[in-house]
Amino acid sequence: MTSSTFTEMPAIDRASLQSALEDPSKDLGFGSEVARGSHKRLLNRDGSFNVARYGLTPFSSLSIYHWSLSTSWPRFLGMLAVAYLGINTLFAFGYILCGIDALQGEAVTGSTEIFLRAFFFSVQTFATIGYGHVIANGTTANLLVTLEAFLNIVGVALSTGVVFARFSRPTAKIIYSHHAVIAPYKGITALEFRIANARTSQIIELEAKVILSRIEATSEGLVRKFRDLRLERTHVTFFPLSWTLVHPIDENSPLVGMNDEDLAETNAEILILLTGTDETSSQTVHSRSSYKAEEIIWNASFAPIFKRSREDGILGMDVGRIHDVSRLG
Amino acid sequence: MTSSTFTEMPAIDRASLQSALEDPSKDLGFGSEVARGSHKRLLNRDGSFNVARYGLTPFSSLSIYHWSLSTSWPRFLGMLAVAYLGINTLFAFGYILCGIDALQGEAVTGSTEIFLRAFFFSVQTFATIGYGHVIANGTTANLLVTLEAFLNIVGVALSTGVVFARFSRPTAKIIYSHHAVIAPYKGITALEFRIANARTSQIIELEAKVILSRIEATSEGLVRKFRDLRLERTHVTFFPLSWTLVHPIDENSPLVGMNDEDLAETNAEILILLTGTDETSSQTVHSRSSYKAEEIIWNASFAPIFKRSREDGILGMDVGRIHDVSRLG
Amino acid sequence: MTSSTFTEMPAIDRASLQSALEDPSKDLGFGSEVARGSHKRLLNRDGSFNVARYGLTPFSSLSIYHWSLSTSWPRFLGMLAVAYLGINTLFAFGYILCGIDALQGEAVTGSTEIFLRAFFFSVQTFATIGYGHVIANGTTANLLVTLEAFLNIVGVALSTGVVFARFSRPTAKIIYSHHAVIAPYKGITALEFRIANARTSQIIELEAKVILSRIEATSEGLVRKFRDLRLERTHVTFFPLSWTLVHPIDENSPLVGMNDEDLAETNAEILILLTGTDETSSQTVHSRSSYKAEEIIWNASFAPIFKRSREDGILGMDVGRIHDVSRLG
Amino acid sequence: MTSSTFTEMPAIDRASLQSALEDPSKDLGFGSEVARGSHKRLLNRDGSFNVARYGLTPFSSLSIYHWSLSTSWPRFLGMLAVAYLGINTLFAFGYILCGIDALQGEAVTGSTEIFLRAFFFSVQTFATIGYGHVIANGTTANLLVTLEAFLNIVGVALSTGVVFARFSRPTAKIIYSHHAVIAPYKGITALEFRIANARTSQIIELEAKVILSRIEATSEGLVRKFRDLRLERTHVTFFPLSWTLVHPIDENSPLVGMNDEDLAETNAEILILLTGTDETSSQTVHSRSSYKAEEIIWNASFAPIFKRSREDGILGMDVGRIHDVSRLG
Repeated sequence: MTSSTFTEMPAIDRASLQSALEDPSKDLGFGSEVARGSHKRLLNRDGSFNVARYGLTPFSSLSIYHWSLSTSWPRFLGMLAVAYLGINTLFAFGYILCGIDALQGEAVTGSTEIFLRAFFFSVQTFATIGYGHVIANGTTANLLVTLEAFLNIVGVALSTGVVFARFSRPTAKIIYSHHAVIAPYKGITALEFRIANARTSQIIELEAKVILSRIEATSEGLVRKFRDLRLERTHVTFFPLSWTLVHPIDENSPLVGMNDEDLAETNAEILILLTGTDETSSQTVHSRSSYKAEEIIWNASFAPIFKRSREDGILGMDVGRIHDVSRLG
Repeated sequence: MTSSTFTEMPAIDRASLQSALEDPSKDLGFGSEVARGSHKRLLNRDGSFNVARYGLTPFSSLSIYHWSLSTSWPRFLGMLAVAYLGINTLFAFGYILCGIDALQGEAVTGSTEIFLRAFFFSVQTFATIGYGHVIANGTTANLLVTLEAFLNIVGVALSTGVVFARFSRPTAKIIYSHHAVIAPYKGITALEFRIANARTSQIIELEAKVILSRIEATSEGLVRKFRDLRLERTHVTFFPLSWTLVHPIDENSPLVGMNDEDLAETNAEILILLTGTDETSSQTVHSRSSYKAEEIIWNASFAPIFKRSREDGILGMDVGRIHDVSRLG
Repeated sequence: MTSSTFTEMPAIDRASLQSALEDPSKDLGFGSEVARGSHKRLLNRDGSFNVARYGLTPFSSLSIYHWSLSTSWPRFLGMLAVAYLGINTLFAFGYILCGIDALQGEAVTGSTEIFLRAFFFSVQTFATIGYGHVIANGTTANLLVTLEAFLNIVGVALSTGVVFARFSRPTAKIIYSHHAVIAPYKGITALEFRIANARTSQIIELEAKVILSRIEATSEGLVRKFRDLRLERTHVTFFPLSWTLVHPIDENSPLVGMNDEDLAETNAEILILLTGTDETSSQTVHSRSSYKAEEIIWNASFAPIFKRSREDGILGMDVGRIHDVSRLG
Repeated sequence: MTSSTFTEMPAIDRASLQSALEDPSKDLGFGSEVARGSHKRLLNRDGSFNVARYGLTPFSSLSIYHWSLSTSWPRFLGMLAVAYLGINTLFAFGYILCGIDALQGEAVTGSTEIFLRAFFFSVQTFATIGYGHVIANGTTANLLVTLEAFLNIVGVALSTGVVFARFSRPTAKIIYSHHAVIAPYKGITALEFRIANARTSQIIELEAKVILSRIEATSEGLVRKFRDLRLERTHVTFFPLSWTLVHPIDENSPLVGMNDEDLAETNAEILILLTGTDETSSQTVHSRSSYKAEEIIWNASFAPIFKRSREDGILGMDVGRIHDVSRLG
């Protein structure tokens, strides 16, 4: 959550805006605000929305569970370790507060030793090891043991649940070429970019939708418009290798007659929406990305990505080359 | 389950009722009974059905599992704690019934101490800590240990399973504005309400269906009718911010020419059905709610909810303002 | 698997059979064999198929996992208990085979005591209690401990996995009325039966397909035909109470002009296929059942099932009465 | 990953290739490369793609998680055992490095005994048994215990998560007959093969798509073409027994007039794509396979697979006979 200062904006005259939009279904749900000519991108390269939400209660906006699901593995395991050490430290102080006789079996002197004895006893209890050379003495300390053992059951259930939820989330990891290109194509030109599957699991029945978002001058002033870019091919049954998506810039294309400066001036953004089926989990997966004007290379084409083994003749693909572009002429 | 008294109702003359309904598919499955003019709401604000079911066997109607899934986290953890204490208490009495020699290693006197020793021994056993300063002695006590250790495995499996099932339930938490409004719209008026996503996870491909349910006078008498309210827009591809749903009250709208008293008198209820895809789990999620006549504000419009940061220009939304309405004129 | 003796049947002249079927898609996948006039039901009342499969390898046909998923909870927990006792018994013998000195800390005499000491030590080890008053001594016994501790991890993972899979299986439990009825309906008659949801979770978007399967005389001889029975209503959006499915026996119905003896003679079976969405899990659920001729009551109608509370006016349903039928005339 | 050497291939003139393909959607996503006349099969018999991908980072290409999911149970449990022994060996050396006094309670002499004492102490700690006859002494050794207990929690969560993910993966295991046949059919011939469900769970709503892939001579030279093979029946509602898929070789079939040598010369491959619903998990499942020319038997038909029990009349199927073919004439 950024702490930027915000200015209030006037309510929108929706009715007048409405009539200016040819097809209201084309604003995709970003809301009429985006028509106000922001120069920020709508979609980040990783597919997240470039918007901010305020006013959610901390609990729902922090949403520990969603964070646990979507953060990286090192951060997730780090959080588990912090929770583990925190619980044991808290209980160590608890046992110390029960008095010097609450833990028996190992004579200690000095505050560091007292803390360490209590901390390691807590570890042995929370992790249910229970060597028994140190034991709790008295009702209060034993109640702490009872609580700590319960927290173990809850903690194991929660961490196992989250770990599995991380595993079972059906996610597509699609590599998009760093740049889109405007390449020669059948006597005209075409907007092209290519994608590959970064996972070893298969994606099948992959569908693509490509939308041009740009500022257009209308009788209402400058408004952001959303226009479909027709693809040579919108669907592949299998996706074992790479897929080059091609939008021919013919007379029907909203890109016809534009050059790179036009794209930059109209604050254009190419939005890409992919939907497919992850074969391992049999669930639908989504991927999004976008190209801004400065991420489009004019008069270039993609370098070859396929290899064929000399011995076995099996078709291969070098994923590392997916971003390679050759500038033409 | 309420313990209200019920009166038997006569069987319905379905055939005659049938002919009175123009389109039978419009009763949505509430059954022909609701046509009998109940003044209760059909859908509660949280989307649950305002009906009661009797005669299910206790096991299936109580349905511990569904309760475990749908109750709040504090109640769920409370239930786990009660089960944990209950099991340990039961086994404590079990060890006591095995006789004073069944537990060895700690001399106790007095019934409280005897119980506590047995209880804490049970905790050490059920949680598999096993310090060993108290041990079970004799075949019966050791069989109790064997059983308690088995219950641990089953209990951990059950609680972990339920915790994960709670995590993995794909649920949409949609915030509906407290009130719907009748607002000026393009020279006519429109019924409007707005919604936002209360979760940090994204909902995509969200579709809305809005239905007016009201009592109408027909040749058969008063019957409850269900009529679609056409929306300016029924679908958004993305839902990163808020969505104001707009039903224009034109000449085709069943609301045309009605005022607030008409709505109250006909016992009208606006039913809302949302269906979308939760992006985190890639599963379809549903949300329902309804507005009764008294929850509709006439001649009002929604206050602005968008903010734009002064520095970074990123579009933001203040969810806390979703309920804010400005009365007009 | 029954051990009945089987007779070989000649290969089928599929081509000639094919031409005899008006619409091949109507055999539902039971295969052309069922056309041979079996008098057995195709679908059992619980929706399983009344067929047998042979020749699968024991591992895949027994399929412990599917059994674990679909058996009742008492049987499943019983199987877990048997596995738990079995593992501990095996390891008890293992420790005994390591020699009298392999376990230390408790002097025992007599073979029963030796076994019990080893068994309870195994329990303390497998369940990871480890009191420590008995310990393993020597490399072999400690390797057994190492193995047993590993089996605990695997066993906990397997049993937790299965428990959760049992929880997360989206299943519809639909109560079908014991009998279907032929009731008066708008001057003609209709085949009717009713269903209710036995679960507390909601089923939405429920669709029904009803098919008549019967033996018909054709130029090819007696063949089993499958014919759709058109429903007054094939779909409900919500299913909070009960649903009476109604097939009007008009001039287009394959049942027109038939009586109960005709149904019995043609070996008729009414197949019901339901598909809906379980709201708790957001997954598609299926339910099947069937009525044979002897399960259809002629000239009867269903007793009322709805109640309305005197005080709060909330609509209620007594599920226990779903099977109640009143014979007419 | 094979270590074959690869030769670079020239970039493809996509535009010219494009015009040569009648319907671009028919290349299924294998990419235009396959049009270059490879004589390798596209789909392996088990449905995996016969292609190789290079250049993925080791982490994503190895993908421990996907390997854990898709490997066999013995290999998966073997990997768990290796990890278990490896962790305990590592910690054993850790405790040894803490010095001879780090573990107390059992006097040992000789390096083997020192290692074994440390290894078994690690087992007792990692598995949280904690007999207590050997205990850690000193801060460093106790910190190792603290770490090991944490690894237990993480390890149990990970292994339980993977075990459950293995259980919950909706997979169809379809048995395809070893060979397809060209059999007499209604005066012409038909390509036929048959399938059965190898699982005890039911698959419903099964759909099949059969595609002929072969090299064809065009004005552009030899290119690989993909052509649908029309089926007598493309869909079964139920799949309790076996299903024989039949493509009649009529005048519209791309196979009309071809013999076995033509198929081999054109490097033909029959691709089969199945999609159905696994009833246990209610999820969509996919299965793929293919037949090369040498796996098609001409002038043969499938042997009968059905049996009917003499006593109970229930229809049965002998899955073991699914591959049995009778050569004709």
